[in-house]
Amino acid sequence: MERQIYLENTAWQEGLALMMEKLAGRCVPRNESLDVRLALHRITGAIVRAKRSSPHFAASAMDGYAIRAKDTHGISEREPRWLELGIQAVQVDTGDPIPEGMDAVVMLEDVLELGEVGILLQAPVVPYNHVRPVGEDIVEGEVLLPIHHRIRPQDQGALLAAGVLEVEVRSKPRVGIMPTGDEIRSPESTLQVGDIVDSNSTVLASLVEEWGGSATIWPITPDQPEKLEEAIQKMAASQDILVIIAGSSQGRDDYTSQMVQKFGTLYLHGVAIKPGKPVVLGEVQGKPTFGVPGYPVSAYLTAHLFLEPWVKHLQGLSKDSQATLDAVISKKVFSSLGSEEFVRVKVGRVGDRWVAAPLSRGAGVTMSLVRADGMLRVPRLQEGFHEGETVPVELLRPISELEETLVCIGSHDLTLDVLSSHMKAKGGQGGIASAHVGSLAGILSLRKGEAHFAGIHLLDPETGEYNRSYLQRFLPGRDVLLMNLVYRTQVFIVPKGNPMNIKTLADLAKPGIRFINRQGGSGTRVLFDYLLQKQGLTKEQILGYEREEFTHLAVAVAVASGSADVGLGIQSAAEALGLDYVFVGEERYDLAIPQEFMREPRMKEMISVIQSKAFQDDVLALGGYDVRDTGVFY
Amino acid sequence: MERQIYLENTAWQEGLALMMEKLAGRCVPRNESLDVRLALHRITGAIVRAKRSSPHFAASAMDGYAIRAKDTHGISEREPRWLELGIQAVQVDTGDPIPEGMDAVVMLEDVLELGEVGILLQAPVVPYNHVRPVGEDIVEGEVLLPIHHRIRPQDQGALLAAGVLEVEVRSKPRVGIMPTGDEIRSPESTLQVGDIVDSNSTVLASLVEEWGGSATIWPITPDQPEKLEEAIQKMAASQDILVIIAGSSQGRDDYTSQMVQKFGTLYLHGVAIKPGKPVVLGEVQGKPTFGVPGYPVSAYLTAHLFLEPWVKHLQGLSKDSQATLDAVISKKVFSSLGSEEFVRVKVGRVGDRWVAAPLSRGAGVTMSLVRADGMLRVPRLQEGFHEGETVPVELLRPISELEETLVCIGSHDLTLDVLSSHMKAKGGQGGIASAHVGSLAGILSLRKGEAHFAGIHLLDPETGEYNRSYLQRFLPGRDVLLMNLVYRTQVFIVPKGNPMNIKTLADLAKPGIRFINRQGGSGTRVLFDYLLQKQGLTKEQILGYEREEFTHLAVAVAVASGSADVGLGIQSAAEALGLDYVFVGEERYDLAIPQEFMREPRMKEMISVIQSKAFQDDVLALGGYDVRDTGVFY
Repeated sequence: MERQIYLENTAWQEGLALMMEKLAGRCVPRNESLDVRLALHRITGAIVRAKRSSPHFAASAMDGYAIRAKDTHGISEREPRWLELGIQAVQVDTGDPIPEGMDAVVMLEDVLELGEVGILLQAPVVPYNHVRPVGEDIVEGEVLLPIHHRIRPQDQGALLAAGVLEVEVRSKPRVGIMPTGDEIRSPESTLQVGDIVDSNSTVLASLVEEWGGSATIWPITPDQPEKLEEAIQKMAASQDILVIIAGSSQGRDDYTSQMVQKFGTLYLHGVAIKPGKPVVLGEVQGKPTFGVPGYPVSAYLTAHLFLEPWVKHLQGLSKDSQATLDAVISKKVFSSLGSEEFVRVKVGRVGDRWVAAPLSRGAGVTMSLVRADGMLRVPRLQEGFHEGETVPVELLRPISELEETLVCIGSHDLTLDVLSSHMKAKGGQGGIASAHVGSLAGILSLRKGEAHFAGIHLLDPETGEYNRSYLQRFLPGRDVLLMNLVYRTQVFIVPKGNPMNIKTLADLAKPGIRFINRQGGSGTRVLFDYLLQKQGLTKEQILGYEREEFTHLAVAVAVASGSADVGLGIQSAAEALGLDYVFVGEERYDLAIPQEFMREPRMKEMISVIQSKAFQDDVLALGGYDVRDTGVFY
Repeated sequence: MERQIYLENTAWQEGLALMMEKLAGRCVPRNESLDVRLALHRITGAIVRAKRSSPHFAASAMDGYAIRAKDTHGISEREPRWLELGIQAVQVDTGDPIPEGMDAVVMLEDVLELGEVGILLQAPVVPYNHVRPVGEDIVEGEVLLPIHHRIRPQDQGALLAAGVLEVEVRSKPRVGIMPTGDEIRSPESTLQVGDIVDSNSTVLASLVEEWGGSATIWPITPDQPEKLEEAIQKMAASQDILVIIAGSSQGRDDYTSQMVQKFGTLYLHGVAIKPGKPVVLGEVQGKPTFGVPGYPVSAYLTAHLFLEPWVKHLQGLSKDSQATLDAVISKKVFSSLGSEEFVRVKVGRVGDRWVAAPLSRGAGVTMSLVRADGMLRVPRLQEGFHEGETVPVELLRPISELEETLVCIGSHDLTLDVLSSHMKAKGGQGGIASAHVGSLAGILSLRKGEAHFAGIHLLDPETGEYNRSYLQRFLPGRDVLLMNLVYRTQVFIVPKGNPMNIKTLADLAKPGIRFINRQGGSGTRVLFDYLLQKQGLTKEQILGYEREEFTHLAVAVAVASGSADVGLGIQSAAEALGLDYVFVGEERYDLAIPQEFMREPRMKEMISVIQSKAFQDDVLALGGYDVRDTGVFY
């Protein structure tokens, strides 16, 4: 198959509108009849009316006696009257039917005297007194639910009470999802170099379920035209919507566009969005058909933009409007003109404002979707946003959860995960949202009011002291508390067995030893530079000094995968990956907390967790930590 | 069994706290291992860590050539160099693995010349240039998800990419739900007088599913001690939480409390809430056990207050905080001291404020739960709220849906249901929320700014004209538009075959003819009084003049059920219930719309629906309507 290289650059809204215009009239919702008890969360496909009234009989609204109102005419305090039990008065409890011929109820409390054979009344009673009339709750023929209503538990109750056992609901749109590509493997496979796990199918199928559809995942189809053709035709025969996920390498979506052209109509190949540009829109056998790029973030985003409206359309619904909030953006976002870019952000409420921190923008970074609290759109004709600008953010998590989250920006340490988990274990919604940018950047975030606290471990080379002098330098005049989280052991992380026999810093300068560094501004980088200087070494002598990773674990992985021979990092990271290590020194890892956040309930909760034995025991179990000052303020 | 009559009156929060204190330590979450692909929306039962890095091999980030960086040392524009294809340079696509020994990628665009056997470069390349390192997305050992996290589609993707196929999730708490009572019938049954349909079991089971539990509905158990005992013991043996729904008549919950006392421990019988007071809290065989009142609203409310926290607790979660908003209350709410009362309200945004309108407060009124948009709490030591007071409302529907809803307060007409359904059919979230309070009360709602429009049909006896004079009288100086919705036929609604042979108004004054009236302020009541006056009749001559219903359908049901011989109402209501009718006259039913709401998009949409042929055809199909002026402004 030849590659078709030129992609179009239409706005995605136009692409969607074009597709709706061509197909929406032909692809319409179907209905099915369903037992009301199985219809939770289904969408009504017609107005639902009551089949009987409720109550369906006149019932007593009180405990008392059913009587005939006309038997009480003329009764007064001066002329009380006895009504004969069993004939003129019948005892009823709340909910009991009013006996034939009776038309009112006297409450127990309104009976002057209760005799063996009668009750004595001293006031007349009007007809229908204390009677729940037929249809008080539901009237036969009344509209119970409108069309396009998502059935809730209480709706099921009303339908059953009204004698409706079967309800017309929208059939779930059937969505066929086909992963393609020679390098794509099912999650069970043992992966070889070059293999890619098919995680997209599961993500898209789950999204389809959330949107009310029913997804079927097709077997992974290799890049062979005849196999793709066969699979697409089979899928078109049984599904309402077709989704073809391309492999992840470039140009792969061309197969899809050619296939759509061959068996149906190609409307558009390529829209002006980032990520997700090479999306394919068309129809095969009259079914809306989507070619979705293989990069996880692109697949997720294009599914939201194009697939969701169609799954909704086939249920007669329009796409829900997304909850948004206005947030201050924590760093400049640059975006190229011509594409609408979708940037994943973390969101937190710090003080009285919401702050949005952009996450990694790579289309392959699955974790950016896991970590994201919201999505920021940079319009096509805009080059981005300035730091500090207020921008609308579409939320991916409920606002109540974000309200309860503490934002931590700073250095990475594994105990922060343990801490967040301990807070979550208490059943709260929040926990800690942490961004790993290094100690110095953490302090700057506090200055800008973007975080509730920062994890820092900054050695002052002048004094040999940790942290305090940096706060004084970068946050002068601010009342910031320092609390110890842990002491931790910094080590040289080396492969199992230490094949290069690294023992001291001097060994790192030997020819051929490949080092992996941490980013500038991280405490570990400061420490490394300090050690080099003390030893009289220069960075030029260290091969790989310019290769930077952002976390201890990433450094350990570089060593584990053989792309580096040694890195400086914390002992627990080496232990997590089963690597060997050489002791370098102990350092103090503190939390810097601006005084104004100390009063927040979630901050108090965090501090109580840090001071608990259960948390400290879990920290010790990681290895390489000392908790002698954990939870202590300086 | 003896009745135990004295209920306690503890605050519900104390009751719940007591139960948690006694049982929470013994009843703890269980975990199970689950295929990640089946784990959507499940709750993690432990921290989830990556089992492998992703990418798990160094991959090219660009289309180009993989090379060894050191082969490019010293290259410059003045000293370009050829790298031999297949040996020093290997063509790679995005995503391809970096071949063994290579450590960097040159982009296609950076190759100066592409020859048969080599590529010409004019600049040196640094190691790891355009290489996605191992673990760029996910690092082995890294925390992917915290404990107590609800798994989303994107989380499933990250887990699969990280080699996690099985995930530890919380087992769904098993909740046994047992309906009891001699008068309770399954929904399939043909109902006799006195029978009550069991709708509560389905409502509670669906709520449990929404809260993450797994519900099993037990057979309906009659009020026989030995049968109840057997059922409770069986339920305790297999379930984590027991719910016993009492019949609806008073005192029935005593069976439950005695049973709990016999087989376990009764903590509390009766809490200070309204509705729902006689709730039973206890444990049987160490399982949290709830006795829930049989009235539908009481059952729903007590489930939210007591059952939800327990279903969440057994998953390690705390109850989500409810979304609330501040709304102006549209009429005085009176509540007795000593009980915390929960009032269902409709909520709408009219102009720039939210308005909450209280719904029926009967514990048996299922439809109040269907219609409710929110719940208002009147604290124990408060006697209610004043009209116009701003109160917090807990929302039962998403705020985005409420934003798009038009609030209609006024007279009831069946075409309003058709109208709302046509608007919903267009796929919008909103539609019309209508409260049926009669024409005059509708006009007063407009005056108070509580509605976007009112449906009115008020005859001016002086002029024989409709509506306009009432607006002038009650909304002087306000710019309110009148648009015709329909002309409709008012009739005397009589039983099939017209057994009392009613032909004219005069027949209603005959002895023994039982009339059913509409409430004061309704257009139909105004019409009836006008007709009486014209005929020279007095209300004392009409038997049943004081019996009032709030809708046309309710009047028709009173006739259909035999509790009245005749009522005045619209023809379509008679037709809906298959009744006969006698023509009385045609009347004009208009919508009164304050000018300031004409600009709202949802109002424009409504008007366009009213003016559409599709809507008018559906109205004509109801019978008794004329659409000659439908959509016309006066």
